[in-house]
Parts: sequence; structure tokens; C-alpha cells
Amino acid sequence: MPRFRLTLEYDGSRFAGWQRQKEAPSVQQTLEEALHSMTGETLDTIVAGRTDAGVHAAGQVVHFDLDRDFSTDKLRDGLNFYLREHRIAILEAAIAAPDFSARLSATQRHYRYRILNRRPPPAIEQGRVWHVPVALDAEAMHEAAQALVGHYDFTSFRSAECQAKSPERTLEAIGVARAGDEIHISTRARSFLHNQVRIMTGTLKLVGEGRWKAGDVKAALDARDRTKAGPTAPPDGLTLMRVDYP
Amino acid sequence: MPRFRLTLEYDGSRFAGWQRQKEAPSVQQTLEEALHSMTGETLDTIVAGRTDAGVHAAGQVVHFDLDRDFSTDKLRDGLNFYLREHRIAILEAAIAAPDFSARLSATQRHYRYRILNRRPPPAIEQGRVWHVPVALDAEAMHEAAQALVGHYDFTSFRSAECQAKSPERTLEAIGVARAGDEIHISTRARSFLHNQVRIMTGTLKLVGEGRWKAGDVKAALDARDRTKAGPTAPPDGLTLMRVDYP
Repeated sequence: MPRFRLTLEYDGSRFAGWQRQKEAPSVQQTLEEALHSMTGETLDTIVAGRTDAGVHAAGQVVHFDLDRDFSTDKLRDGLNFYLREHRIAILEAAIAAPDFSARLSATQRHYRYRILNRRPPPAIEQGRVWHVPVALDAEAMHEAAQALVGHYDFTSFRSAECQAKSPERTLEAIGVARAGDEIHISTRARSFLHNQVRIMTGTLKLVGEGRWKAGDVKAALDARDRTKAGPTAPPDGLTLMRVDYP
Repeated sequence: MPRFRLTLEYDGSRFAGWQRQKEAPSVQQTLEEALHSMTGETLDTIVAGRTDAGVHAAGQVVHFDLDRDFSTDKLRDGLNFYLREHRIAILEAAIAAPDFSARLSATQRHYRYRILNRRPPPAIEQGRVWHVPVALDAEAMHEAAQALVGHYDFTSFRSAECQAKSPERTLEAIGVARAGDEIHISTRARSFLHNQVRIMTGTLKLVGEGRWKAGDVKAALDARDRTKAGPTAPPDGLTLMRVDYP
């Protein structure tokens, strides 16, 4: 009963998020149906990051067990054949150790948030960026963001629906940098709370506009109260870039 | 009767090309309808590059005359309002000299072609790249491409439907470089023949695969025969990046 690990890319705007649900197409259901078409087996995949509706992935990781052995090259190419109309691509298929878990073995998750910071709306990148027409100060956002690095109670930066038992997390790094018309927020942690990156982004935008000072971000964190942080940024700009394992 | 100049971005996969046609939505028709909605005037726009179906623009330029004066900021923002569902964005609106022509005054047109060069198909960038699964040698492509720089009869690199009177053009520069999983072909000239960039790309791909040597590109150019060059690359990967004026 070999265990497999897949690395995948998907366009989140086509799905109601990772997780299987009754009313709308999810990445999980689409992937599991492709796996069924290819192997004849019905199985449950375990994922590294349960991305929300509209959130993209450039390096999502899942694992699952199959009764029968498969060549990893055939698995990757066969799944890509079944997924060809679905904006999901398998970048890599590999054999995993029997105790490997895409979710629990992950040591670091890397996310990137893209803001299109110009007056005209996006034409080409629609659905992949958050359009902010007011000029943002990326350096001020970067400085203010550093207050979030470390081990904290991130209650102010988690959604009301967050199911994590503890609101404590360790943010390893966060960087804000301008790239032409865009501002990129790159961050990594072993794990994030629900909507944490989007709420951090919505909060840092207030700093970028000059409405908040760096100290206000620290105060919002210390308050441990969701209403003291900024709004949740839309999912469009967010991509799960990579997941690290030992 | 002021003359206006617009710089625009669009997702070409939504349109049957720039040019107005009966059966399918074109960028020109969509833009002219937005102009009509905003100004009440019916007008003809003149464009720098008549992009084909599926070809994108990051810096297309058009000009037109209006009977009435408009603030350029209002023109840009108003058009972006009418175009918001159409994947066209006005990046800039400016007053132009009475003798300015988006088409005839252009001194240089810059195009970029993106090849996604990896085995798995694109999920996020579908419609914006040409997927070539076989590993390409970008350095060999770059070297071979240099044979095309200069003033030549580009008959081998124009489509059968090309309406230009002369097949002679001056290719100012062409560069091929790898960027991660992608290969970018960047090229500029005062003007290009119909499908010239796509046929150059399709030809350079043969070099990248090792099926052609650099000398074969020169021989194809010298042959002045469309059948001696490579196939026409798909429109997906092509973007009109910028147009220069004096």
C-alpha cells in the first residue's frame, strides 16, 4: 500500500476552495475524481494547506495511499490528462514514506500576496491580484510588518470561523516589496490561522495608505481582538507558493 | 477637435483580435462602444498593433478625435468603468498632437513571447503561455535568433494573409532568456509582418529542441519561402508590451 505525494498548481478562481463541499466544485473533489478515473480507487487526500475559495496554489502538497503501485511519472502525466480542463496541474508525483503527512510533516508554509497598486484596474491579472488604486508606501508596510514576526497570540488576525485550537502561531518572516506596479507580501510560518495572511495584508494596507502607523499594527496584535485589526483582503491576490518538509 | 491617445492593457483570450468583425467580439468594437457610452460620439480608433485573436497587450496604443474636450483623467476613469467586465484597462489617457498617429508615428514596437517549458501543463497561466513540454536550450535559441537581426526580406516569416506591401523589415533586436520554468523571447522593430513574431518563435523552438542548427534559421531567412521556416507558434504566449513614439 504505497503512499504518494503530489505537488500541484491550481487557479483558485475556478473553485470554491480546496475542501470538498456539497454545492460547489472544490479542488479536492476534482483531484479525487481524477485519481478515481485513473486508478479505479476511491480515496481521501490529505492536504498541506486548505486554501479558501479564490486562493491559488503554485506548490500545494497532498498525500494519499493507493492499493496498487503506480509509476510516479505515469501518475503525474495521467492525472494531468484527466485534469486538463480544470486548471489544476500536477507538477510532481513522488513515493512518500509510510508515515509522511502532507499536513502534519510540513515544517514551513510559504504564501505570497500580490497587490496591483495603480489607478487602472487589472485586465490581464484580474482574479490574481488585489486592486488597490491608492498609492501605497511599501517600505512603511515592510517596517510595520516586522512587529508580527515571532511567537504570538494572533487572535486579532484570525477569522471568526477559524477552527484551530490555539490562536498562537510563530510567524517566521514577512517581507513587503514593490515590483513595478505591484506590491508583494511574502510570508512563511509552520502554519497559519484561518485568513491570517489576508488579515495581515488588509492591516498592512492601512499602513501603506498612511492611515495607520507601525505602532498601530503592534497594538492590534496585542489587543487579541479581531475587531482591532484591519479588514480581510480578498482571496484573489493570495497564492500558496511552497511547503517545506524535513 | 482634440486628438486623444490611450495606452491600454487587455487579455486577448477574451477577444477575436483587435480588429472589428461581424461575428465575434473584438477589442476595437468593445473599446469604441465604451467610448460611445461615455462621450455620445461614434468614432474610429487607429491602433498601433492589430493584434490577432488570443494575443495580449500590456501597452497597446490607440488614437482618436473627439468633437468635445474631455479631461484625460475623466476619460481614463470613465472608460475603465464601462470596460470593467471586459478585461480591457486604460492605463493612460493623454492629449496628442493633431498629427499624431498611433500607427504611423510609432518608431518601435516591443513584443514578448512566453513559453512555459516544463512537462506539466499550465494551470494558472493557461492562455498566456505556449506550453512546450520538451526541454529547450534557451542559449542556442538566443544565438540562432541573432541571424534575424537587421534589414531583410522576411517572406519566410510572414503569414499567407499578410497584407503588407513589402516583405522587408528591420528587426532591431531579439533576445531569448530562461526565467525559471519559462523562456521569454523579447523582440522589437519599427513594425512587424503578420505573424512574424509567432513564426520566428515557432522556428526558434526547433533550434531549442536541437532539431535545427543556428545555420538553418539563416537558411530559412535566405530562402524567402514561408514553407522553409518553422510553424506558427500559438497566439497565447504573445504580448504587445510597448510602443515607442518620438
